[in-house]
Amino acid sequence: MEQINNIEVGPCTESDYLQPFRVHYNQNGTKKSWDFMRTHDSVSVLIFNTTLHCFVLVKQFRPAVYMCEWERIKKQPPQSAEKSEEGASEAAAPESQEGQSVSEGESSSQWPPASAGVTYELCAGLVDKPDLSLEEIARQEVLEECGYDVPASKLKRITSYRSGVGVTGSKQTMFYAEVSDDNCVSAGGGEPREGELIEVVKIPLHEAMTFAYDERIPKTMGVIFSFIWFHNNMSPKYKISTNV
Amino acid sequence: MEQINNIEVGPCTESDYLQPFRVHYNQNGTKKSWDFMRTHDSVSVLIFNTTLHCFVLVKQFRPAVYMCEWERIKKQPPQSAEKSEEGASEAAAPESQEGQSVSEGESSSQWPPASAGVTYELCAGLVDKPDLSLEEIARQEVLEECGYDVPASKLKRITSYRSGVGVTGSKQTMFYAEVSDDNCVSAGGGEPREGELIEVVKIPLHEAMTFAYDERIPKTMGVIFSFIWFHNNMSPKYKISTNV
Repeated sequence: MEQINNIEVGPCTESDYLQPFRVHYNQNGTKKSWDFMRTHDSVSVLIFNTTLHCFVLVKQFRPAVYMCEWERIKKQPPQSAEKSEEGASEAAAPESQEGQSVSEGESSSQWPPASAGVTYELCAGLVDKPDLSLEEIARQEVLEECGYDVPASKLKRITSYRSGVGVTGSKQTMFYAEVSDDNCVSAGGGEPREGELIEVVKIPLHEAMTFAYDERIPKTMGVIFSFIWFHNNMSPKYKISTNV
Repeated sequence: MEQINNIEVGPCTESDYLQPFRVHYNQNGTKKSWDFMRTHDSVSVLIFNTTLHCFVLVKQFRPAVYMCEWERIKKQPPQSAEKSEEGASEAAAPESQEGQSVSEGESSSQWPPASAGVTYELCAGLVDKPDLSLEEIARQEVLEECGYDVPASKLKRITSYRSGVGVTGSKQTMFYAEVSDDNCVSAGGGEPREGELIEVVKIPLHEAMTFAYDERIPKTMGVIFSFIWFHNNMSPKYKISTNV
């Protein structure tokens, strides 16, 4: 269970990570402009462990998701807001995009439990090493985050698509990797140097479709899609017994 | 075919749409901080026209996607960069997140064709009307963007998930709507007042799975996932003949 406390939030005037740009252009003769952000493309990997017949996902606390849930609680009537036993009270006062402001020093009951910010995701990473192929970058993420050492040549490309088309529009490429316990060389967990606190979780194959469609389990669409892709494309090989 | 020209891009110091915030917190005793953006949740709708046996998607020029492709071309050796017949030459000089800068007045050959920024997407919209249910917001988007008037009660919830977990973490809820030509009350195309230039496109059912996995067609994961969801869940009803 994650322990999150001493939370402080405020506007961010200079960010190394989020840098808005504005583009002006004419579209079919109409003058338009759009604010966007530049980001890296990314790769994600559906990992299937053939020894244990389970999928290998990562689970981590996502501050952006947590803050979203904080917003949601603020909008609810007080009596229905969940109380937190973990959140701290040192809230600063961000202005929302709608212009309403939040008073300082909100009580700890305003902070949701840490679990509200934890999501299940595919092993994934940014394409930020120009010398490496997508497969090679995916291979590194599988090793660093999940502890499996598999050759890049064993990664099967599933498909690619656009994400965040309103804001970043980056390209995401999804791979499939079959691993066995013999490929497991470490516990994974990400790069501590980069401050990653990643938990590796295993989802048994026979529970995968129920997991995919259980909305109480916060997850990315990549998890849902890839489980169904596996169900449609790999099920004859692994005899999936679930009916979906 | 979209005509895009007179493109100018530069840093954006004040945006009504992209407002970075920074949150500081302790995670299991480790001090951390994260830059994120607040955004609205969203809904998307897979629309199936039962008269024509086709899916109804929207297609639009996405500046963020276009600028991504511009970045990609810049990184390629000059001889392999695609030349544009449409792009204009009035480029300003944004700084990338990696710190390299771009010289002013780049030639028009640096701009990709407009088609590089056009994506296929599900009909979708932001959850920015607190008085309306998700179904009601989805209903309005189906009407405004695609021209079909269907009651909110006919919208079937498919699932929900988290998007942009690193930056926004917002919640997206996906619906399925069956429409017929009898429900078609306008050409759709979005709200001109809001500057939307949306093209409504129909994908025949028998071409859907090929479309979903054709990486040459730029699209969101929502399109791919929902087509496969339909294939798995609705195919007995509509006798899909494709093998996937």
